[in-house]
Amino acid sequence: MLPVSFLLLAPYVLASSSFLEPRKFSLESRATNIDGSLPTYKDPNASIEDRVADLLPRMTLEEKVAQLIQGDMNGWMNLNDPLDDTLTFNQSGLEQMMAQKAGTIWGGYLTPYDKFVFGVEVGQRYLMENTTLGIPAIVQSEGLHGFTNKGTIFPSPIGLAASFNTSLVNSVGTVVSDEAEGLGISMIFAPVLDLSREVRWGRVEENYGEDPFLTGEMGFAFVNGIQDGTRKNVTAGGSGGVRKRMAATCKHFAAFGSPYSGLNLAPVLGGERDLRTLYLPPFERACVESLAIMTAYSVYDGVPAIANKHLLTDILRNEWGYQYYVTTDAGSVDLLIKQHGTCDTRECAAKTALENGLSGEMGGGSYTYLTLPDQVKAGTVDESFIDETVKTLLRTKFTLGLFENPYPYTDYNATIRTPKSKEILHTADLESIVLLENHNNLLPLSKDIGSIALIGPQAGRVSFGDYVFFNASLAGISPLDGFTQFLSDASSSTKINFAQGCELWSNDESGFDEAVAAASNSDVAIVMVGTWSLDQTLLWQPGTNATTGEHVDIHDLGLVGAQLKLIQAVKAAGKPTIVVFVSGKPIAEPWVQDHADAVIQQFYPGELGGLALAEIVFGAENPSGKLPVSFPRDIGTAPAFYNYLKGGRIPPLDFGRVLDDGTLIFGHQYVLDSPIPLWSFGHGLSYTTFNYTDLTIPGTAGTKDDVKVTVTVHNTGSVDGKEVVQVYLTDVVSSVTTPNQKLVGFQKVFIPAGGSQTVTIDIPNRELAVWTINNEWVVEPGLFTVQIGTSDTVFASRNFTAIS
Amino acid sequence: MLPVSFLLLAPYVLASSSFLEPRKFSLESRATNIDGSLPTYKDPNASIEDRVADLLPRMTLEEKVAQLIQGDMNGWMNLNDPLDDTLTFNQSGLEQMMAQKAGTIWGGYLTPYDKFVFGVEVGQRYLMENTTLGIPAIVQSEGLHGFTNKGTIFPSPIGLAASFNTSLVNSVGTVVSDEAEGLGISMIFAPVLDLSREVRWGRVEENYGEDPFLTGEMGFAFVNGIQDGTRKNVTAGGSGGVRKRMAATCKHFAAFGSPYSGLNLAPVLGGERDLRTLYLPPFERACVESLAIMTAYSVYDGVPAIANKHLLTDILRNEWGYQYYVTTDAGSVDLLIKQHGTCDTRECAAKTALENGLSGEMGGGSYTYLTLPDQVKAGTVDESFIDETVKTLLRTKFTLGLFENPYPYTDYNATIRTPKSKEILHTADLESIVLLENHNNLLPLSKDIGSIALIGPQAGRVSFGDYVFFNASLAGISPLDGFTQFLSDASSSTKINFAQGCELWSNDESGFDEAVAAASNSDVAIVMVGTWSLDQTLLWQPGTNATTGEHVDIHDLGLVGAQLKLIQAVKAAGKPTIVVFVSGKPIAEPWVQDHADAVIQQFYPGELGGLALAEIVFGAENPSGKLPVSFPRDIGTAPAFYNYLKGGRIPPLDFGRVLDDGTLIFGHQYVLDSPIPLWSFGHGLSYTTFNYTDLTIPGTAGTKDDVKVTVTVHNTGSVDGKEVVQVYLTDVVSSVTTPNQKLVGFQKVFIPAGGSQTVTIDIPNRELAVWTINNEWVVEPGLFTVQIGTSDTVFASRNFTAIS
Repeated sequence: MLPVSFLLLAPYVLASSSFLEPRKFSLESRATNIDGSLPTYKDPNASIEDRVADLLPRMTLEEKVAQLIQGDMNGWMNLNDPLDDTLTFNQSGLEQMMAQKAGTIWGGYLTPYDKFVFGVEVGQRYLMENTTLGIPAIVQSEGLHGFTNKGTIFPSPIGLAASFNTSLVNSVGTVVSDEAEGLGISMIFAPVLDLSREVRWGRVEENYGEDPFLTGEMGFAFVNGIQDGTRKNVTAGGSGGVRKRMAATCKHFAAFGSPYSGLNLAPVLGGERDLRTLYLPPFERACVESLAIMTAYSVYDGVPAIANKHLLTDILRNEWGYQYYVTTDAGSVDLLIKQHGTCDTRECAAKTALENGLSGEMGGGSYTYLTLPDQVKAGTVDESFIDETVKTLLRTKFTLGLFENPYPYTDYNATIRTPKSKEILHTADLESIVLLENHNNLLPLSKDIGSIALIGPQAGRVSFGDYVFFNASLAGISPLDGFTQFLSDASSSTKINFAQGCELWSNDESGFDEAVAAASNSDVAIVMVGTWSLDQTLLWQPGTNATTGEHVDIHDLGLVGAQLKLIQAVKAAGKPTIVVFVSGKPIAEPWVQDHADAVIQQFYPGELGGLALAEIVFGAENPSGKLPVSFPRDIGTAPAFYNYLKGGRIPPLDFGRVLDDGTLIFGHQYVLDSPIPLWSFGHGLSYTTFNYTDLTIPGTAGTKDDVKVTVTVHNTGSVDGKEVVQVYLTDVVSSVTTPNQKLVGFQKVFIPAGGSQTVTIDIPNRELAVWTINNEWVVEPGLFTVQIGTSDTVFASRNFTAIS
Repeated sequence: MLPVSFLLLAPYVLASSSFLEPRKFSLESRATNIDGSLPTYKDPNASIEDRVADLLPRMTLEEKVAQLIQGDMNGWMNLNDPLDDTLTFNQSGLEQMMAQKAGTIWGGYLTPYDKFVFGVEVGQRYLMENTTLGIPAIVQSEGLHGFTNKGTIFPSPIGLAASFNTSLVNSVGTVVSDEAEGLGISMIFAPVLDLSREVRWGRVEENYGEDPFLTGEMGFAFVNGIQDGTRKNVTAGGSGGVRKRMAATCKHFAAFGSPYSGLNLAPVLGGERDLRTLYLPPFERACVESLAIMTAYSVYDGVPAIANKHLLTDILRNEWGYQYYVTTDAGSVDLLIKQHGTCDTRECAAKTALENGLSGEMGGGSYTYLTLPDQVKAGTVDESFIDETVKTLLRTKFTLGLFENPYPYTDYNATIRTPKSKEILHTADLESIVLLENHNNLLPLSKDIGSIALIGPQAGRVSFGDYVFFNASLAGISPLDGFTQFLSDASSSTKINFAQGCELWSNDESGFDEAVAAASNSDVAIVMVGTWSLDQTLLWQPGTNATTGEHVDIHDLGLVGAQLKLIQAVKAAGKPTIVVFVSGKPIAEPWVQDHADAVIQQFYPGELGGLALAEIVFGAENPSGKLPVSFPRDIGTAPAFYNYLKGGRIPPLDFGRVLDDGTLIFGHQYVLDSPIPLWSFGHGLSYTTFNYTDLTIPGTAGTKDDVKVTVTVHNTGSVDGKEVVQVYLTDVVSSVTTPNQKLVGFQKVFIPAGGSQTVTIDIPNRELAVWTINNEWVVEPGLFTVQIGTSDTVFASRNFTAIS
């Protein structure tokens, strides 16, 4: 939290007061003190606030503004050819860049490491040695589910969320930083904390699912994974305060993930209560200590996020005391002119974003912040807003220790693709798999089975989600390769009959015969279908196709093209049929739930996804993933999120149905379908069975207390397994309408077959609170119900009463 | 508007002060004055406020509460058998009813008129002659699109809205009152001013479409049609103030029509800006002088409408000065306990609704308001809230003149089903028809054509929407009957080949052969398909089916069952094929747009719908309806409303498509479909052509001015026709994000072939205003664009600048 003084003093007063003291430096030599002493800002042992306060007055207006505009390594390097390895740079480009856009530098390129570190070295050395004040830049890259420049690619965030394993997600963040830090990168644009409540949106795979609590916990784990630690040659902690080795960038602040109509960047509907109870909690949980936050592109109730003073100043800065850097997203300041219609000039756009948002400007647009020096001189923008924003960036830089050492490490390779990283990857790929259906315990298959058919367009393919770079999938293992490797390693003689059957993107059924033959010739058929995305190069390239990913929004959650028919044809061959969905979002195919013998959900995996799938299918590993997002029966029954406000689905629901033979069974909610999802949030089967006993909750709890939930979980089956203990809460009577239930705690535990474990989960006090009609959080006395289970199955339940 | 004194004084002060004066009456004889003078409340020439102020202190607490609870004629009559005509009543039931529930009386029954007026007479006479104060009741019934007890049934409101004809809608309201008033009814539960922006919702047909401006104008016309005039034996106006002959009841206040997931009663998402700019304007336009308003069932941003003080007290009472009666909807107070979870006792529910909403309680629940007397005595409810609410009901009653004459008229039959009403009905049925497509000017058909095939499940059927009573459709004329009658009247020898083809509710294709044969044997095929609803008896009866109407929510906008296949089979017969959608909401079948030779949208018609359709098809009448709601291509591309906020559909849209042969054309918004609707708001073709010239708008307008738009419309075709001049406005730059366009004026004009007319439309100043971040309406100086056309076609455009 920020010192109280920051909260009490208006920005303008702060900025002015620093000039009331006698200057320690001369205007000619701003980087040295008149008395010869080390300037405080250069002192690693000085407090960050003192260093900020010392540095800011030394900066010219132009230098301040340059801090707030994102630069780009391509300004002095040629990074367009990912294979080129020439170690040259452009001096005039470098000087021009650093004069105007020097605070943060975009370095998210696919480029040889030695060239990259050369470029970073050149840039930082110029700033440190050839500019008056020697302010290092933050070099930024992508690492949403793995460092994108040939780093280890993990499952997409929606898959990581399915693990319900916070320490695992923390480790994934650590690996991202391990692989990026040595290259001189100091900021990663992740995690995404948007909620997947509008599942048509292309970026569902980038989120941790539909639930604010799960998203907050996963985000907190990832942020810490990214940030915790100290950069080399930087003193950890001490009198200069805590250091972080990398800045995470929580995005997209806020309420970006629910565009109406599902179209990317479209407006978001909602009021203050939705904002406070759904969209903000993940950020408040995960990001108050995140060294950066990125704003959303969209409007919320008509107010553009980047110009939303209520959101960015009142709540983020003043209520939460957030003290680090906020950046806009690429090109988004210009959208005030081009999309939102709230400005007609770059001057207006820059002023609006800066003064309401205290944010810097990312590239990708017209660099409206270049107008700020003239606007300050003309008196239309108050320099104090620039000062306050620069201070947030300086805090981030000082916390990173960049003033002490902004350079890449010579041994950067030592932390890339280590054996330990691969182990974490393997766990992530295993735990992100969700077993949805397993009729007659068809799974796991025996390694002694004679033959299996691997069928479908996902079987021979590596399907990563978006936010990977060109050709990243070459490092991945497909299901076909994974099964082959697994069976070989297990010395199994099981035969694999492979047939693609159809493409993901076509209605062509010419491969069906081969697929049906493969199934007929095998003991079991496994059909792998789903959605697909593309890497960051191909995704935006005209002429390519995809069904998920940024700016790829769909109107239908059914399988595209011939895929469902392929499953039906294979099933008709008469062999037990396992369907595997490899996808970045829910797939809505009720037929599969009704007719497949088993269904596995593999969200876009990491590099070992194909192997992990084989291990799960053959029972070498026990599935433990749970759905972070509910699967509607049809887009027309969406939203399907489990934590709808009371009244969202009023029992008794009278739903209809179209039978396989075309018979229409009429109902009312809906006439020919049901709002009950195919599989609801938290669902996921295991090869073992768990039983819950001894649920204990205090009968009463103070309105300011956490509530301790204790329950004993027994593995009553015959194999070891991991279980996610999920705690759901209902505020039975409240002054405003609250969700019918919400997740308020979870813990993943490993329990050997026949074993048991007592689990204690504290329901955080804040989860008891409602955002009242008076716009404040209040824990209202009264009855609460706690349920242990999934969002649609109760294993154990007790009540408690909050008392004031 | 309410006197300023009402706004300035707190309710409590008002209520108390009336007791500070010496009483004019004794407690024993409250209905007479001590000095023998006529009590003011009985004086028709006294002002309404004086009468209210005089009466209220004479009432006991129990009498006041009884005013606020809806009674029911069935309490003293047996109205369960619609055919029974026994003129008897139950005295003890009458007395019990009037002791507890005497303010408003539900009389919405299908029952013989003589029995009904007998019951009303008995009830009112008891109140007037056998109770101390002689306070008459308001008798309530339904008349959403026609008085429901065997009155004239007009097109459903969505069809009335398609007329874009406010004087017509005003006339419809007049007919409803003409038919209900003589029976002693004094309140009609209409109009519905919800917006059809969530088209899965079953009640879309009850609304005037997706647009707030059109809805407000239609609502205003209907309210005035219902209300304007004076009941018989009541002195109009004079010193006692303006009289109305009937209370309209605007519903559902507010934001009821956009339940998330489309499920009836489900929560509505939105913020204050959406509330102010979308949901409230129709009510502010139409209902400030409406004698009643009904609350919504739903929650908005988590706050139940009936307990929403901001909505019902701050805005409705204090900002708008609304002075008349607000009633909750049936059973809705109990929903605070059963659905919204904001109360756990009837006492809490009653207190919450009363104190926040200043509303009475409708039946259909547990009558929570019966707890109010004890709650007042116990001090948990302040009687001032009861007083203020009773005053609103008394104002409504005094304005109706009920204290002078609450009785039915002996000549009630004289105003039911008059020739003039039928003429209005005929016009309404004609003008609600929208010609969507007319390739190669296939329509109108010649009366000399040899034969036509009338095909489809809507051809031989009368499809009324909901809010009609049992067997109402018997009074309607089906398309088959209408075509037959029309051709007979026109002495045409055109042969009709009829074939139903399929049912609305089945996939059975056994009738296809007959239908294809009928098409093959005819010169033209007309296929009539659509949705269907049921009357108020059948709609709620288990075992019946419907696809629209209250509590009948759908997940898919496609034609149900075999209907689309029927169209395809008929079209394949090779004859020109006209598709008629008879429906209560948009139907999403892109194939029909692509392949039908002409497409007609007939929203659920009135009794003459089948005849009107024939007249349009054969060109005896020229279609003039325009869509009040946009037709999405698929539910997965919804919402399709035209007036989305800027950024809702960002050009250039790159949309995909599945071709008829199954080829997949990939895009991004959406991958395999488009958010552009099939037909957008305001669209509707004519048999003639119109041209627009001389659009004139002042170059500048003051921020407090209306803006006068003048344009000349030329009928450049060969037949007379009506055109709807539509004015759309865009606020080019605003402080918050505004709609990409919005309707701000329209006028329907008849122009003979070759003729022209100059039309002047004032854009009301309020339409220029934005609801700012500071929560106030402000007309912001700057550029506005005015477009004449439809929501997707611009005929003429000019800019003006608002200057302060």
